Amino acid sequence: MSYKQHRSIRQYASKPIDPELLNDILTTGVRASNTGNMQTYSIIVTQDPQRKQALAPLHFNQPMVTQAPVLLTFCADFHRFEQWCHASNAKPGYLNLMGLLTATIDTMLLAQNVAAAAEDQGLGLCFLGTTLYSIQQHCDLLQLPKGVIPLLTMTLGYPAVTPPLTERLPLEAIVHHEQYTQRTDQQIKALYADIESLPANQNFVNENSKETLAQVFTDIRYRPEDYRQFSAAILDTLRKQGFSI
Amino acid sequence: MSYKQHRSIRQYASKPIDPELLNDILTTGVRASNTGNMQTYSIIVTQDPQRKQALAPLHFNQPMVTQAPVLLTFCADFHRFEQWCHASNAKPGYLNLMGLLTATIDTMLLAQNVAAAAEDQGLGLCFLGTTLYSIQQHCDLLQLPKGVIPLLTMTLGYPAVTPPLTERLPLEAIVHHEQYTQRTDQQIKALYADIESLPANQNFVNENSKETLAQVFTDIRYRPEDYRQFSAAILDTLRKQGFSI
Repeated sequence: MSYKQHRSIRQYASKPIDPELLNDILTTGVRASNTGNMQTYSIIVTQDPQRKQALAPLHFNQPMVTQAPVLLTFCADFHRFEQWCHASNAKPGYLNLMGLLTATIDTMLLAQNVAAAAEDQGLGLCFLGTTLYSIQQHCDLLQLPKGVIPLLTMTLGYPAVTPPLTERLPLEAIVHHEQYTQRTDQQIKALYADIESLPANQNFVNENSKETLAQVFTDIRYRPEDYRQFSAAILDTLRKQGFSI
Repeated sequence: MSYKQHRSIRQYASKPIDPELLNDILTTGVRASNTGNMQTYSIIVTQDPQRKQALAPLHFNQPMVTQAPVLLTFCADFHRFEQWCHASNAKPGYLNLMGLLTATIDTMLLAQNVAAAAEDQGLGLCFLGTTLYSIQQHCDLLQLPKGVIPLLTMTLGYPAVTPPLTERLPLEAIVHHEQYTQRTDQQIKALYADIESLPANQNFVNENSKETLAQVFTDIRYRPEDYRQFSAAILDTLRKQGFSI
């Protein structure tokens, strides 16, 4: 188990995580780079079974949420830094789009460094993007003050399974030399050909009576109308949390 | 050199990076988790000296920008995915706040995994948050199409120096158990005491005739009026790049 061979682990052994090990992993995590050493992030650790139960519906009741010994919710956090400024006779003002983006960047560098540290120690994890789907409920349940935005949750524990590696696009789809290379539709289709031809993906298309894999994304998994609704809800929460956006 | 002991490297040896090694590092990088395997990111590799010269002013002409053999600009990218959808008779619609945040999350998990892979191979790097300061100029220079947003740049090469580790806040400042812990101003000041007492930080305060370290941040390094201006410029670019925000 290593960041080179990352697999999302959705089934965990019942073995708990030693508190000292968790501490080591998080200590390693915060070694990641961050903007100006402001460390504008916080991690909420959930271990209490009742609190896991409360969070589970926000993640579509995926069993791993209650099965994993530890949940980590990674939050962009300008609250602590701004409180320090106010307590130091300084006038902060970072609750805006720039602050949101820099804090999000730093929080995610932290999250991936925690992931690398955890996998190095034989732990497995799965990132849950559903945190953004229910951003306000996360703020409420985790009692997040102004300036704090929940972004991403990680289930963490000892893996009960070793799933196969997930297919990725060829590197040439991702990497551009010197400037962005616009592709023709034919070139784009060629880059996705291997992914489209995977039996699992062909099954998704057939089972859902779709014409193409892309339609499985747009019509079922990540519907534009849902993205519009999430966008409105996120904007609402950002403003409630004090951000001028 | 490892992600456990990350240092930002600002001086590089003249040794180039073997293309195969760079390829390996980026291939490892994309093993990081991402939302629904949509891989909504792109990496622009800059190696051409003239292009480095053109980018340097956007990063305050820090010498490492032209000295490092490689610059990587990490971009949130829904362009490729949406083009694939259109070419597959599917109707995407992800250029909104939800799309921006999920793509930013995935792009930063990628960036940190590239960092871990690079440091594992003996390379050094520095992340440049200045990419957001000149987001439109980055779009222009790198010829980024609609749906693509430059977020963060990495200088990459063989380290010419091994700087000391940067101080971090005590872990208890970052980690909250079960729910967010509100601190008193006194508790916050205590958490920042070690950082405030570092000789380098005391020098910053004295040299700039400030009362507190926090004032060095708010009055010099990260001025709220600059954050407001950057926010407006970013919003402008997001809209030019096709995002409804």
